[in-house]
Amino acid sequence: MIGQAPLLAALKGVVGGGHVLTDSADLAGFAADGRGAHGHPLAVVRPASAAEVVAVMRLAIAAGVRLVPQGARTGLVEAGIADQGGGMLLLSLDRLNAIAVDPANRSAQVGAGARLSALNAAAGELGLHYPIDLGADPSVGGMVAANTGGARFLHYGDVRRNLLGLEVATAEPEPRLLRLGAGLWKDNSALDLKQLFVGSCGSMGVVTGASLALSTLPQVRLTALMALETPDMATGLLATLEQHFGALLTAFEGISMPALAAALQHVPRLKAPFPHLSPGYCVLVELSAGTAFEAGWLEDRLGELLTPWLERGDVLDAAMDRGAGLWAIRHAVPEGLRASGRVVACDIALKRGDVMRFRADVAARVSAIAPQLKLMDFGHVGDGGLHFNMVWPAEAGPFQPAVAEAARALVFRTAVNGYGGSFSAEHGIGPANAHWYQELVSADVRALSGVVQQLVSPMPIGRVDFGLSDTRTSA
Amino acid sequence: MIGQAPLLAALKGVVGGGHVLTDSADLAGFAADGRGAHGHPLAVVRPASAAEVVAVMRLAIAAGVRLVPQGARTGLVEAGIADQGGGMLLLSLDRLNAIAVDPANRSAQVGAGARLSALNAAAGELGLHYPIDLGADPSVGGMVAANTGGARFLHYGDVRRNLLGLEVATAEPEPRLLRLGAGLWKDNSALDLKQLFVGSCGSMGVVTGASLALSTLPQVRLTALMALETPDMATGLLATLEQHFGALLTAFEGISMPALAAALQHVPRLKAPFPHLSPGYCVLVELSAGTAFEAGWLEDRLGELLTPWLERGDVLDAAMDRGAGLWAIRHAVPEGLRASGRVVACDIALKRGDVMRFRADVAARVSAIAPQLKLMDFGHVGDGGLHFNMVWPAEAGPFQPAVAEAARALVFRTAVNGYGGSFSAEHGIGPANAHWYQELVSADVRALSGVVQQLVSPMPIGRVDFGLSDTRTSA
Repeated sequence: MIGQAPLLAALKGVVGGGHVLTDSADLAGFAADGRGAHGHPLAVVRPASAAEVVAVMRLAIAAGVRLVPQGARTGLVEAGIADQGGGMLLLSLDRLNAIAVDPANRSAQVGAGARLSALNAAAGELGLHYPIDLGADPSVGGMVAANTGGARFLHYGDVRRNLLGLEVATAEPEPRLLRLGAGLWKDNSALDLKQLFVGSCGSMGVVTGASLALSTLPQVRLTALMALETPDMATGLLATLEQHFGALLTAFEGISMPALAAALQHVPRLKAPFPHLSPGYCVLVELSAGTAFEAGWLEDRLGELLTPWLERGDVLDAAMDRGAGLWAIRHAVPEGLRASGRVVACDIALKRGDVMRFRADVAARVSAIAPQLKLMDFGHVGDGGLHFNMVWPAEAGPFQPAVAEAARALVFRTAVNGYGGSFSAEHGIGPANAHWYQELVSADVRALSGVVQQLVSPMPIGRVDFGLSDTRTSA
Repeated sequence: MIGQAPLLAALKGVVGGGHVLTDSADLAGFAADGRGAHGHPLAVVRPASAAEVVAVMRLAIAAGVRLVPQGARTGLVEAGIADQGGGMLLLSLDRLNAIAVDPANRSAQVGAGARLSALNAAAGELGLHYPIDLGADPSVGGMVAANTGGARFLHYGDVRRNLLGLEVATAEPEPRLLRLGAGLWKDNSALDLKQLFVGSCGSMGVVTGASLALSTLPQVRLTALMALETPDMATGLLATLEQHFGALLTAFEGISMPALAAALQHVPRLKAPFPHLSPGYCVLVELSAGTAFEAGWLEDRLGELLTPWLERGDVLDAAMDRGAGLWAIRHAVPEGLRASGRVVACDIALKRGDVMRFRADVAARVSAIAPQLKLMDFGHVGDGGLHFNMVWPAEAGPFQPAVAEAARALVFRTAVNGYGGSFSAEHGIGPANAHWYQELVSADVRALSGVVQQLVSPMPIGRVDFGLSDTRTSA
């Protein structure tokens, strides 16, 4: 084991003196994640190649220093930032940002540090896109680590479903690069080991590059925002839209009326979709199509389908949009919530048919133990993902963390134990929710995960211990 | 370790006397796989529940007898049959055939032994289907083990992309059932361990049940068979169709003219699609849509798109079909090849843009070393999967295995080493191609796979050793 000064010197030898940051002013830009949590690293090291990543890993292991891979700091569970101890080495992948699109294969070879927006700019020139639709602009490596899903999961799926290969620096049996596929859509010639690193939150190895499946960029998009008389209508409307439009349906998002009201009240750039807000529930529907279609044709078909729903009064109001106006409302919801008070966020998933029953059931039970909290949920009703977020408004008095935690515990425990749901639909696992992992994931799964992690990543990397104990996160 | 007679008696105690088969007449029905390879098991045991599977596993391990899971015997690489030694215990999952469809969640909970056809019959009544389109009728457990892809992979992907959960009997640390998710479309609350069993060919544990993602069953389908002037046209036509029809494009299959001619010549039920066969290359295109569409509208749009291709002479002939007639031609190709001589099959995958270059390159080189073989390839050009099959016709004289193997070796080595392709796109790994696994998969991947397998499945199950040596397949 080597000391701190020799380690930093050796790191500078690998990546260049300008890319090992230790000044607090330099470190500040690497400290916080998407939820604003802060860490204090020993240093930030910024390699320029996969080979440098391996060299850095070798030095960190020799020094007994924990390496924490970091992407674009948009994560929400503290998996990509250091702890407070000042002893972790942040491995920023921001310089590994090459992007090469292969239009004939409809794929891209991308460095882990490339941003989603940069990838989509390059792909868009060729009529393609990486179809994971998120509010943030993460790095590709971070997307792999969190297995991000987003608002068009219903149609496109998550990163796992749009991944053709990975290049990973692993520590087993010693630091080296592992190449796990590239560019093939179909391949069953070996165990698909890259799956072990997807959604592993940076704790199984360091993803240095990815081979991604691209989709054709739709040329025609139509969105509709609908106010439903009751939330229960959403389930039937979803099934009807799926049967009617098949694969053209690319999003089915839910917005509770309090969440919609918060966005419209606090985000002045938004245009109100309806003359007045009804008490029910809102859904945003998106249809996407190729150049064979015209938006007017889609409008006519959607209008025909909705007519009986409007006549019956099941749909109270409907606004259609060929542009991005309705999406802007949906994407402004988190901002609206933050402006409404202290947000208690719960990134849960349920079976699709359970979503509205869960909402009604748990809203009532949360009210009973935390009457200060106002449910302002929204999310991906088409895939069962729900941001069951609650807001503690200023007028409810000082925020009481214990009350909020009790509400969150009720939501998570009911989702998992009562409904077979998930307490982390798309944000992954990190220090922020590792205690829920320990409580709510079965001992069988944690035991096997722990031995697999020990095997693939014998030296601690990242912030998550997937085993039965919490030693790695608390190290 | 217990002897053979006590083992059989104990197995009868678990599953009932009538479900442990040892008579050669009874065993005959369980001996052969989809390619006709035969094995000689010690016995066939047919448990009726996942708990019985675990009990059988416990007995087999105690007796030191290798358990080989078997589905519907449609596999093509001998992974689901016994070897010739008479010492392996075939674990047939055919009695675990329960099917429960959840229409609101668009999913199904299915026993490993349920057939794809039975699943689709149940799902079809609700306007849903499991969209993996195959020539065979496999069991769901077998589909998971092989990670089957098929003819609509371009749109729907493989089993891995349509899987929400698995129930698996594993031997680590002792035989027990592991429940790895069920019914959730989005879940990142743990490492996704079920991925370890997908495509593992029955050699990581015994899949007893699966939670499957269903799709809406298209109500309108249109197919078109097109004769292209040259194979190279296929790549541009694919990109044009993808941009034009977006997600409505559900298949883009390629059929070489010799393969089409063989099907039309040897399968009398087929109707010739064109007045005469041109020398180029054929593609089968499928568009699928929901109830918002009419087939006539799709025909008009496809006709508009094809007009300039026909006028330029790039497309020589085009036949459209609202029924299953053109698919019947495509699905009859393997039968046409078998009737044409001895088939030398190569289930390869390439990057999509490489397919036609590979065909031209390797066809010429195969001719040079095996002039008796006639290339009659076909396959899934839209996803880069290619059945690069060759036929040794009777008129070429007696079949010479060494010449055929040399040709196959050239195809596989060129696909993998020359093009970064795969020697097993969708059939998986088994005794039939394990030597290619050893030669063509990197030592890094095999080493890590071996330790993962050793960890998850310390007692040998199934027929494949994913490690560096070939001990398990030859045991």
